[in-house]
Amino acid sequence: MCENDRHPFSEAIAAAFLAADEAAARGEVPVGAAVLDPGGALLAVAGNRVEALGDPSAHAELLAMRDAATRLGQSRDRRLRLSGCTVVVTLEPCPMCAAAMEHFRVARVVFGAYDPKGGGVAHGPRLFERAGCLHRPEVIGGVREREAAHLLRAFFMRLRE
Amino acid sequence: MCENDRHPFSEAIAAAFLAADEAAARGEVPVGAAVLDPGGALLAVAGNRVEALGDPSAHAELLAMRDAATRLGQSRDRRLRLSGCTVVVTLEPCPMCAAAMEHFRVARVVFGAYDPKGGGVAHGPRLFERAGCLHRPEVIGGVREREAAHLLRAFFMRLRE
Repeated sequence: MCENDRHPFSEAIAAAFLAADEAAARGEVPVGAAVLDPGGALLAVAGNRVEALGDPSAHAELLAMRDAATRLGQSRDRRLRLSGCTVVVTLEPCPMCAAAMEHFRVARVVFGAYDPKGGGVAHGPRLFERAGCLHRPEVIGGVREREAAHLLRAFFMRLRE
Repeated sequence: MCENDRHPFSEAIAAAFLAADEAAARGEVPVGAAVLDPGGALLAVAGNRVEALGDPSAHAELLAMRDAATRLGQSRDRRLRLSGCTVVVTLEPCPMCAAAMEHFRVARVVFGAYDPKGGGVAHGPRLFERAGCLHRPEVIGGVREREAAHLLRAFFMRLRE
């Protein structure tokens, strides 16, 4: 616990994990995300809602970024999108969410478990590393990795039971 | 006109172009998209709404796919997502929208203008060509390409005036 408390994004990480747990309880793949404003205040939190919304694009990060952009757009120029903001997510973003982070101009992405099969940041197309990348956020991967990976493993083990 | 009328996706192409024109009239980047069900009937049409919604992810294809999945989910198993469906879009999809097409399990994507700078299908990360691609739609690019490219050029020329 001490280790988590010292992490500069500990509040957002805790919120993302809680959202992932809540997603699992709804029968969703347990992924949670939180967005911090440039000052570090929590702007938005979301869990995966693919099943609930019948929307295969309703990934936690995309929902949280949309919500955060709406909130932030009320207090500053909307054209700034999420510049200066940090997205914290329990799983490495897929290519869709990673590419969305470019459109939202996210400053930093902090993620938990690596996703060798479905990830698009440290795996697969490694979108931020390509030559034509329009906006390249700072990436911090593997935060509370074991806990994040366990959450997913436990969910898929229950599905197979 | 005869050439367009003969195209198997002529109705969807016309709908996508109309949605792109309407987007331009709202001050949006003029991109339009339409989704056809497996039988070829028009399921959903959308134009780019990034500015109107203050949502950088509100690209025409993503909006049309979400709408189409909701409609189709009322008459068949939602878990089929958009399998068997065709997405028609006036511009080569960006990496976010191309990756979303994998999640929606789109059967076919038909697009107009190629986008060497922002595209993710025939350019950039060429998402459907990567080894780990989860679902690979058939791709037909360059349909009514000149007209589609003109639409965008005219819009950006007006912006610069």
